[in-house]
Amino acid sequence: MELETHSFNIKTRGNCDIIDITSQIENLIDNSGFTEGSVLVFAGGSTAGITTIEYEPGLLEDYPAFFDKIIPVNINYHHDNTWHDGNGHSHVRAAIQGASLTVPFINGSMLLGTWQQIIFMDFDNRSRNRQITVQITGNKF
Amino acid sequence: MELETHSFNIKTRGNCDIIDITSQIENLIDNSGFTEGSVLVFAGGSTAGITTIEYEPGLLEDYPAFFDKIIPVNINYHHDNTWHDGNGHSHVRAAIQGASLTVPFINGSMLLGTWQQIIFMDFDNRSRNRQITVQITGNKF
Amino acid sequence: MELETHSFNIKTRGNCDIIDITSQIENLIDNSGFTEGSVLVFAGGSTAGITTIEYEPGLLEDYPAFFDKIIPVNINYHHDNTWHDGNGHSHVRAAIQGASLTVPFINGSMLLGTWQQIIFMDFDNRSRNRQITVQITGNKF
Repeated sequence: MELETHSFNIKTRGNCDIIDITSQIENLIDNSGFTEGSVLVFAGGSTAGITTIEYEPGLLEDYPAFFDKIIPVNINYHHDNTWHDGNGHSHVRAAIQGASLTVPFINGSMLLGTWQQIIFMDFDNRSRNRQITVQITGNKF
Repeated sequence: MELETHSFNIKTRGNCDIIDITSQIENLIDNSGFTEGSVLVFAGGSTAGITTIEYEPGLLEDYPAFFDKIIPVNINYHHDNTWHDGNGHSHVRAAIQGASLTVPFINGSMLLGTWQQIIFMDFDNRSRNRQITVQITGNKF
Repeated sequence: MELETHSFNIKTRGNCDIIDITSQIENLIDNSGFTEGSVLVFAGGSTAGITTIEYEPGLLEDYPAFFDKIIPVNINYHHDNTWHDGNGHSHVRAAIQGASLTVPFINGSMLLGTWQQIIFMDFDNRSRNRQITVQITGNKF
Protein backbone atom coordinates (compact mmCIF):
# COMPACT_ATOMS: atom_id res chain seq x y z
CA MET A 1 0.00 0.00 0.00
CA GLU A 2 1.02 3.56 -0.71
CA LEU A 3 -0.30 7.02 0.02
CA GLU A 4 -0.14 10.40 -1.68
CA THR A 5 -1.28 13.78 -0.34
CA HIS A 6 -2.56 16.32 -2.86
CA SER A 7 -4.43 19.61 -2.63
CA PHE A 8 -6.24 22.07 -4.83
CA ASN A 9 -7.68 25.55 -4.38
CA ILE A 10 -11.14 26.94 -5.01
CA LYS A 11 -12.65 30.38 -4.74
CA THR A 12 -16.04 30.55 -3.01
CA ARG A 13 -18.68 33.22 -2.45
CA GLY A 14 -19.29 32.13 1.18
CA ASN A 15 -22.83 32.21 2.65
CA CYS A 16 -23.53 28.50 2.09
CA ASP A 17 -21.90 28.43 -1.34
CA ILE A 18 -21.87 24.80 -2.49
CA ILE A 19 -19.06 23.71 -4.83
CA ASP A 20 -19.05 20.36 -6.64
CA ILE A 21 -15.49 19.05 -6.23
CA THR A 22 -16.09 15.53 -7.56
CA SER A 23 -14.23 15.94 -10.85
CA GLN A 24 -11.12 17.41 -9.21
CA ILE A 25 -10.95 14.36 -6.93
CA GLU A 26 -11.59 11.93 -9.80
CA ASN A 27 -8.75 13.54 -11.74
CA LEU A 28 -6.34 13.22 -8.82
CA ILE A 29 -7.17 9.49 -8.51
CA ASP A 30 -6.84 9.01 -12.28
CA ASN A 31 -3.48 10.76 -12.45
CA SER A 32 -2.11 8.97 -9.38
CA GLY A 33 -2.42 5.47 -10.83
CA PHE A 34 -4.11 4.09 -7.70
CA THR A 35 -6.59 1.33 -8.53
CA GLU A 36 -8.11 0.29 -5.18
CA GLY A 37 -8.26 2.23 -1.95
CA SER A 38 -9.86 5.28 -0.39
CA VAL A 39 -9.68 9.03 -0.72
CA LEU A 40 -9.81 11.32 2.31
CA VAL A 41 -11.19 14.78 1.51
CA PHE A 42 -10.50 17.35 4.21
CA ALA A 43 -11.45 21.01 4.66
CA GLY A 44 -8.91 22.91 6.74
CA GLY A 45 -10.68 25.75 8.56
CA SER A 46 -13.54 26.10 11.00
CA THR A 47 -16.23 27.61 8.73
CA ALA A 48 -16.46 25.00 5.96
CA GLY A 49 -17.70 21.43 5.54
CA ILE A 50 -17.59 18.41 3.24
CA THR A 51 -20.43 16.02 2.41
CA THR A 52 -22.20 14.41 -0.55
CA ILE A 53 -25.44 15.52 -2.22
CA GLU A 54 -27.18 15.33 -5.58
CA TYR A 55 -25.78 18.47 -7.17
CA GLU A 56 -28.87 19.89 -8.88
CA PRO A 57 -30.34 23.43 -8.74
CA GLY A 58 -33.24 22.56 -6.42
CA LEU A 59 -31.10 21.13 -3.64
CA LEU A 60 -28.63 24.02 -4.01
CA GLU A 61 -31.53 26.10 -2.63
CA ASP A 62 -32.98 23.53 -0.24
CA TYR A 63 -29.80 22.65 1.63
CA PRO A 64 -28.83 26.28 2.46
CA ALA A 65 -32.48 26.93 3.43
CA PHE A 66 -32.21 24.08 5.94
CA PHE A 67 -29.17 25.71 7.56
CA ASP A 68 -30.87 29.12 7.57
CA LYS A 69 -33.74 27.56 9.48
CA ILE A 70 -31.94 25.51 12.14
CA ILE A 71 -28.88 27.80 12.58
CA PRO A 72 -30.14 31.30 11.69
CA VAL A 73 -27.87 34.15 10.67
CA ASN A 74 -29.77 36.83 12.57
CA ILE A 75 -29.71 35.65 16.16
CA ASN A 76 -27.07 36.47 18.75
CA TYR A 77 -24.00 34.26 18.98
CA HIS A 78 -21.52 34.53 21.84
CA HIS A 79 -18.81 33.96 19.23
CA ASP A 80 -19.44 37.45 17.92
CA ASN A 81 -18.66 38.89 21.34
CA THR A 82 -15.19 37.37 20.98
CA TRP A 83 -14.34 38.38 17.41
CA HIS A 84 -17.09 40.77 16.18
CA ASP A 85 -16.89 39.24 12.71
CA GLY A 86 -20.57 38.25 12.51
CA ASN A 87 -19.97 34.62 11.57
CA GLY A 88 -21.04 32.72 14.69
CA HIS A 89 -23.58 30.84 12.60
CA SER A 90 -20.82 29.81 10.15
CA HIS A 91 -18.88 28.05 12.91
CA VAL A 92 -21.90 26.21 14.31
CA ARG A 93 -22.92 25.05 10.82
CA ALA A 94 -19.41 23.80 10.06
CA ALA A 95 -19.15 21.88 13.35
CA ILE A 96 -22.35 19.92 12.72
CA GLN A 97 -21.60 19.29 9.02
CA GLY A 98 -18.09 17.98 9.59
CA ALA A 99 -14.77 18.72 7.90
CA SER A 100 -13.88 15.37 6.38
CA LEU A 101 -15.23 12.61 4.15
CA THR A 102 -13.69 9.31 3.08
CA VAL A 103 -14.82 7.59 -0.14
CA PRO A 104 -13.69 4.11 -1.27
CA PHE A 105 -12.70 3.37 -4.88
CA ILE A 106 -12.06 0.23 -6.94
CA ASN A 107 -10.73 -0.02 -10.49
CA GLY A 108 -9.82 3.64 -10.11
CA SER A 109 -13.48 4.71 -9.69
CA MET A 110 -15.10 6.07 -6.54
CA LEU A 111 -18.10 4.05 -5.36
CA LEU A 112 -20.44 7.03 -5.41
CA GLY A 113 -24.07 6.67 -6.43
CA THR A 114 -25.09 7.89 -9.87
CA TRP A 115 -26.56 11.12 -8.48
CA GLN A 116 -24.13 11.59 -5.60
CA GLN A 117 -21.52 14.33 -5.81
CA ILE A 118 -18.85 15.39 -3.30
CA ILE A 119 -19.36 18.99 -2.22
CA PHE A 120 -17.40 21.63 -0.37
CA MET A 121 -19.68 23.99 1.56
CA ASP A 122 -18.44 27.42 2.54
CA PHE A 123 -20.39 28.63 5.58
CA ASP A 124 -18.36 31.81 6.12
CA ASN A 125 -20.07 35.16 5.65
CA ARG A 126 -17.73 36.38 2.90
CA SER A 127 -15.88 35.22 -0.20
CA ARG A 128 -12.91 32.96 0.57
CA ASN A 129 -10.01 31.23 -1.13
CA ARG A 130 -9.93 27.65 0.16
CA GLN A 131 -7.43 24.82 -0.01
CA ILE A 132 -8.83 21.29 0.00
CA THR A 133 -6.65 18.33 0.94
CA VAL A 134 -7.08 15.03 -0.92
CA GLN A 135 -5.14 12.10 0.51
CA ILE A 136 -5.25 8.89 -1.53
CA THR A 137 -4.38 5.58 0.13
CA GLY A 138 -4.34 2.17 -1.52
CA ASN A 139 -2.76 -0.07 -4.12
CA LYS A 140 -1.48 0.83 -7.58
CA PHE A 141 -1.63 -2.67 -9.10
CA MET B 1 -0.52 -3.28 5.35
CA GLU B 2 -3.20 -4.62 3.07
CA LEU B 3 -6.71 -3.66 2.03
CA GLU B 4 -9.80 -5.51 0.88
CA THR B 5 -13.03 -4.08 -0.51
CA HIS B 6 -16.25 -5.97 0.20
CA SER B 7 -19.95 -5.21 -0.15
CA PHE B 8 -23.31 -6.59 0.87
CA ASN B 9 -26.91 -5.81 0.02
CA ILE B 10 -29.89 -4.99 2.20
CA LYS B 11 -33.54 -4.36 1.50
CA THR B 12 -35.04 -1.35 3.27
CA ARG B 13 -38.53 0.10 3.69
CA GLY B 14 -37.30 3.70 3.21
CA ASN B 15 -38.85 6.55 5.25
CA CYS B 16 -36.10 6.65 7.90
CA ASP B 17 -35.80 2.88 8.10
CA ILE B 18 -32.86 2.10 10.38
CA ILE B 19 -30.93 -1.15 9.76
CA ASP B 20 -28.36 -2.51 12.20
CA ILE B 21 -25.42 -3.59 9.99
CA THR B 22 -22.92 -4.26 12.78
CA SER B 23 -22.90 -8.05 12.51
CA GLN B 24 -22.38 -8.05 8.73
CA ILE B 25 -19.31 -5.84 9.21
CA GLU B 26 -18.01 -7.95 12.11
CA ASN B 27 -18.32 -11.05 9.94
CA LEU B 28 -16.40 -9.44 7.08
CA ILE B 29 -13.57 -8.52 9.46
CA ASP B 30 -13.59 -12.02 11.01
CA ASN B 31 -13.49 -13.76 7.65
CA SER B 32 -10.77 -11.47 6.25
CA GLY B 33 -8.17 -12.36 8.85
CA PHE B 34 -7.29 -8.71 9.56
CA THR B 35 -6.26 -8.18 13.17
CA GLU B 36 -5.56 -4.43 13.48
CA GLY B 37 -6.79 -1.59 11.27
CA SER B 38 -9.92 0.25 10.31
CA VAL B 39 -13.11 -0.41 8.42
CA LEU B 40 -14.63 2.19 6.11
CA VAL B 41 -18.41 1.81 5.74
CA PHE B 42 -19.85 3.74 2.80
CA ALA B 43 -23.38 4.28 1.48
CA GLY B 44 -23.44 4.90 -2.25
CA GLY B 45 -26.44 7.08 -3.09
CA SER B 46 -27.73 10.51 -2.11
CA THR B 47 -30.71 9.50 0.09
CA ALA B 48 -29.02 7.32 2.73
CA GLY B 49 -26.64 7.75 5.64
CA ILE B 50 -24.37 5.87 8.03
CA THR B 51 -23.83 6.54 11.74
CA THR B 52 -23.79 4.79 15.11
CA ILE B 53 -26.57 4.60 17.69
CA GLU B 54 -27.82 2.35 20.48
CA TYR B 55 -30.09 0.08 18.47
CA GLU B 56 -33.09 -0.24 20.80
CA PRO B 57 -36.82 0.27 20.06
CA GLY B 58 -37.12 3.68 21.75
CA LEU B 59 -34.39 5.35 19.71
CA LEU B 60 -35.73 3.73 16.54
CA GLU B 61 -38.71 6.05 17.10
CA ASP B 62 -36.82 9.04 18.52
CA TYR B 63 -34.21 9.40 15.79
CA PRO B 64 -36.71 9.45 12.88
CA ALA B 65 -38.89 11.86 14.92
CA PHE B 66 -35.91 14.21 15.13
CA PHE B 67 -35.56 14.22 11.34
CA ASP B 68 -39.32 14.70 10.90
CA LYS B 69 -39.06 17.79 13.08
CA ILE B 70 -36.00 19.56 11.66
CA ILE B 71 -36.40 18.44 8.01
CA PRO B 72 -40.17 17.92 7.55
CA VAL B 73 -41.67 15.79 4.81
CA ASN B 74 -44.58 18.13 4.12
CA ILE B 75 -42.96 21.41 3.20
CA ASN B 76 -41.96 22.53 -0.30
CA TYR B 77 -38.53 21.57 -1.59
CA HIS B 78 -37.10 23.02 -4.79
CA HIS B 79 -35.72 19.56 -5.47
CA ASP B 80 -39.24 18.38 -6.22
CA ASN B 81 -39.54 21.02 -8.95
CA THR B 82 -36.60 19.29 -10.66
CA TRP B 83 -37.64 15.65 -10.34
CA HIS B 84 -41.23 15.54 -8.98
CA ASP B 85 -40.37 12.46 -6.92
CA GLY B 86 -41.35 13.94 -3.56
CA ASN B 87 -38.09 13.13 -1.79
CA GLY B 88 -36.47 16.54 -1.30
CA HIS B 89 -36.42 15.91 2.45
CA SER B 90 -34.59 12.61 1.87
CA HIS B 91 -31.69 14.37 0.17
CA VAL B 92 -31.36 17.08 2.82
CA ARG B 93 -31.43 14.48 5.60
CA ALA B 94 -28.76 12.37 3.88
CA ALA B 95 -26.46 15.35 3.31
CA ILE B 96 -26.44 16.34 6.99
CA GLN B 97 -26.13 12.74 8.26
CA GLY B 98 -23.19 11.82 6.02
CA ALA B 99 -22.49 8.82 3.84
CA SER B 100 -19.42 7.32 5.48
CA LEU B 101 -18.08 6.11 8.81
CA THR B 102 -14.68 4.73 9.76
CA VAL B 103 -14.27 2.46 12.79
CA PRO B 104 -10.92 1.22 14.17
CA PHE B 105 -10.39 -2.39 15.27
CA ILE B 106 -7.73 -4.28 17.23
CA ASN B 107 -7.44 -8.04 17.81
CA GLY B 108 -10.08 -8.36 15.10
CA SER B 109 -12.72 -6.48 17.16
CA MET B 110 -14.15 -3.06 16.41
CA LEU B 111 -13.67 -0.53 19.23
CA LEU B 112 -17.39 0.21 19.52
CA GLY B 113 -19.00 0.90 22.87
CA THR B 114 -21.12 -1.85 24.42
CA TRP B 115 -24.37 -0.19 23.34
CA GLN B 116 -23.12 1.30 20.07
CA GLN B 117 -24.24 -0.23 16.78
CA ILE B 118 -23.44 0.78 13.19
CA ILE B 119 -26.61 1.69 11.34
CA PHE B 120 -27.61 2.30 7.74
CA MET B 121 -30.46 4.84 7.48
CA ASP B 122 -32.63 4.92 4.41
CA PHE B 123 -34.13 8.41 4.02
CA ASP B 124 -35.76 7.76 0.65
CA ASN B 125 -39.57 7.83 0.44
CA ARG B 126 -39.91 4.25 -0.81
CA SER B 127 -38.52 0.75 -0.38
CA ARG B 128 -35.01 0.32 -1.79
CA ASN B 129 -32.38 -2.33 -2.42
CA ARG B 130 -29.08 -0.93 -1.18
CA GLN B 131 -25.46 -1.95 -1.58
CA ILE B 132 -23.10 -1.07 1.26
CA THR B 133 -19.34 -0.95 0.73
CA VAL B 134 -17.04 -2.17 3.50
CA GLN B 135 -13.35 -1.51 2.91
CA ILE B 136 -10.97 -3.04 5.45
CA THR B 137 -7.42 -1.68 5.80
CA GLY B 138 -4.74 -2.93 8.17
CA ASN B 139 -2.49 -5.78 9.18
CA LYS B 140 -3.18 -9.50 9.17
CA PHE B 141 -0.53 -10.56 11.68
CA MET C 1 2.89 2.00 5.22
CA GLU C 2 2.38 1.22 8.89
CA LEU C 3 -0.32 1.72 11.47
CA GLU C 4 -0.42 2.18 15.23
CA THR C 5 -3.46 2.22 17.52
CA HIS C 6 -3.26 4.41 20.62
CA SER C 7 -5.78 5.65 23.18
CA PHE C 8 -6.06 8.14 26.01
CA ASN C 9 -8.63 8.88 28.70
CA ILE C 10 -10.43 12.06 29.65
CA LYS C 11 -12.86 12.97 32.39
CA THR C 12 -15.88 14.99 31.27
CA ARG C 13 -18.77 16.76 33.00
CA GLY C 14 -21.33 15.53 30.43
CA ASN C 15 -24.21 17.81 29.32
CA CYS C 16 -22.52 18.98 26.11
CA ASP C 17 -19.11 19.33 27.72
CA ILE C 18 -16.62 20.16 24.94
CA ILE C 19 -13.02 19.01 25.39
CA ASP C 20 -10.18 20.19 23.13
CA ILE C 21 -8.19 17.01 22.37
CA THR C 22 -5.94 18.48 19.65
CA SER C 23 -2.72 18.51 21.67
CA GLN C 24 -3.09 14.90 22.82
CA ILE C 25 -3.41 13.83 19.18
CA GLU C 26 -0.50 16.03 18.08
CA ASN C 27 1.66 14.45 20.77
CA LEU C 28 0.76 10.92 19.67
CA ILE C 29 1.73 11.76 16.07
CA ASP C 30 4.97 13.42 17.23
CA ASN C 31 5.95 10.49 19.41
CA SER C 32 5.09 7.89 16.77
CA GLY C 33 7.56 9.15 14.19
CA PHE C 34 4.95 9.12 11.39
CA THR C 35 5.59 11.89 8.84
CA GLU C 36 2.75 11.57 6.29
CA GLY C 37 -0.62 9.92 6.68
CA SER C 38 -3.90 10.27 8.52
CA VAL C 39 -5.19 10.00 12.06
CA LEU C 40 -8.54 8.40 12.84
CA VAL C 41 -10.10 9.74 16.06
CA PHE C 42 -12.94 7.58 17.38
CA ALA C 43 -15.33 7.89 20.31
CA GLY C 44 -16.50 4.51 21.58
CA GLY C 45 -19.98 4.90 23.10
CA SER C 46 -23.37 6.07 21.92
CA THR C 47 -23.60 9.41 23.78
CA ALA C 48 -20.49 11.22 22.53
CA GLY C 49 -19.23 12.77 19.32
CA ILE C 50 -16.11 14.07 17.57
CA THR C 51 -15.82 17.12 15.30
CA THR C 52 -13.74 20.27 14.77
CA ILE C 53 -14.53 23.80 15.92
CA GLU C 54 -12.75 27.00 16.86
CA TYR C 55 -12.24 26.37 20.57
CA GLU C 56 -13.05 29.77 22.05
CA PRO C 57 -15.42 30.70 24.92
CA GLY C 58 -18.21 32.09 22.72
CA LEU C 59 -18.64 28.95 20.64
CA LEU C 60 -18.42 26.80 23.78
CA GLU C 61 -21.79 28.42 24.62
CA ASP C 62 -23.19 28.66 21.09
CA TYR C 63 -22.68 25.05 20.05
CA PRO C 64 -24.41 23.51 23.11
CA ALA C 65 -27.20 26.11 22.71
CA PHE C 66 -27.75 24.83 19.16
CA PHE C 67 -28.19 21.27 20.46
CA ASP C 68 -30.51 22.46 23.24
CA LYS C 69 -32.69 24.08 20.58
CA ILE C 70 -32.93 21.34 17.95
CA ILE C 71 -32.76 18.32 20.32
CA PRO C 72 -34.23 19.58 23.61
CA VAL C 73 -33.59 17.93 26.97
CA ASN C 74 -37.11 18.40 28.27
CA ILE C 75 -39.29 16.61 25.75
CA ASN C 76 -40.33 12.97 25.85
CA TYR C 77 -38.05 10.38 24.29
CA HIS C 78 -39.12 6.78 23.77
CA HIS C 79 -35.59 5.82 24.76
CA ASP C 80 -36.43 6.77 28.34
CA ASN C 81 -39.26 4.24 28.33
CA THR C 82 -36.64 1.56 27.69
CA TRP C 83 -33.95 2.58 30.18
CA HIS C 84 -35.39 5.36 32.39
CA ASP C 85 -32.00 7.08 32.47
CA GLY C 86 -33.21 10.41 31.09
CA ASN C 87 -30.64 10.66 28.30
CA GLY C 88 -32.69 10.14 25.15
CA HIS C 89 -31.51 13.53 23.89
CA SER C 90 -27.88 12.46 24.42
CA HIS C 91 -28.26 9.53 22.04
CA VAL C 92 -29.98 11.57 19.32
CA ARG C 93 -27.33 14.30 19.55
CA ALA C 94 -24.51 11.76 19.31
CA ALA C 95 -26.05 10.03 16.28
CA ILE C 96 -26.27 13.24 14.25
CA GLN C 97 -22.83 14.52 15.34
CA GLY C 98 -20.97 11.30 14.49
CA ALA C 99 -18.41 9.26 16.38
CA SER C 100 -15.36 9.52 14.14
CA LEU C 101 -13.14 12.03 12.37
CA THR C 102 -10.14 11.50 10.10
CA VAL C 103 -7.50 14.22 9.70
CA PRO C 104 -4.59 14.10 7.22
CA PHE C 105 -1.04 15.13 8.19
CA ILE C 106 2.19 15.86 6.32
CA ASN C 107 5.65 16.54 7.77
CA GLY C 108 4.19 15.28 11.04
CA SER C 109 1.64 18.14 11.24
CA MET C 110 -2.12 17.82 10.90
CA LEU C 111 -3.59 19.97 8.12
CA LEU C 112 -5.99 21.77 10.44
CA GLY C 113 -6.83 25.44 9.94
CA THR C 114 -5.24 27.95 12.30
CA TRP C 115 -8.44 28.27 14.37
CA GLN C 116 -9.63 24.69 14.01
CA GLN C 117 -9.40 22.33 16.98
CA ILE C 118 -10.45 18.69 17.33
CA ILE C 119 -13.08 18.33 20.03
CA PHE C 120 -14.69 15.49 21.97
CA MET C 121 -18.28 16.30 22.93
CA ASP C 122 -19.92 14.47 25.79
CA PHE C 123 -23.70 14.52 25.32
CA ASP C 124 -24.50 12.24 28.27
CA ASN C 125 -26.43 13.69 31.19
CA ARG C 126 -23.74 13.00 33.78
CA SER C 127 -19.99 13.06 34.34
CA ARG C 128 -18.15 10.30 32.47
CA ASN C 129 -14.69 8.80 32.08
CA ARG C 130 -14.07 8.36 28.38
CA GLN C 131 -11.49 6.51 26.30
CA ILE C 132 -10.63 7.98 22.91
CA THR C 133 -9.01 5.84 20.22
CA VAL C 134 -6.38 7.41 17.95
CA GLN C 135 -5.25 5.24 15.06
CA ILE C 136 -2.36 6.61 12.98
CA THR C 137 -1.77 5.26 9.46
CA GLY C 138 0.99 6.33 7.09
CA ASN C 139 4.71 6.47 6.41
CA LYS C 140 7.57 7.06 8.83
CA PHE C 141 10.17 8.23 6.30
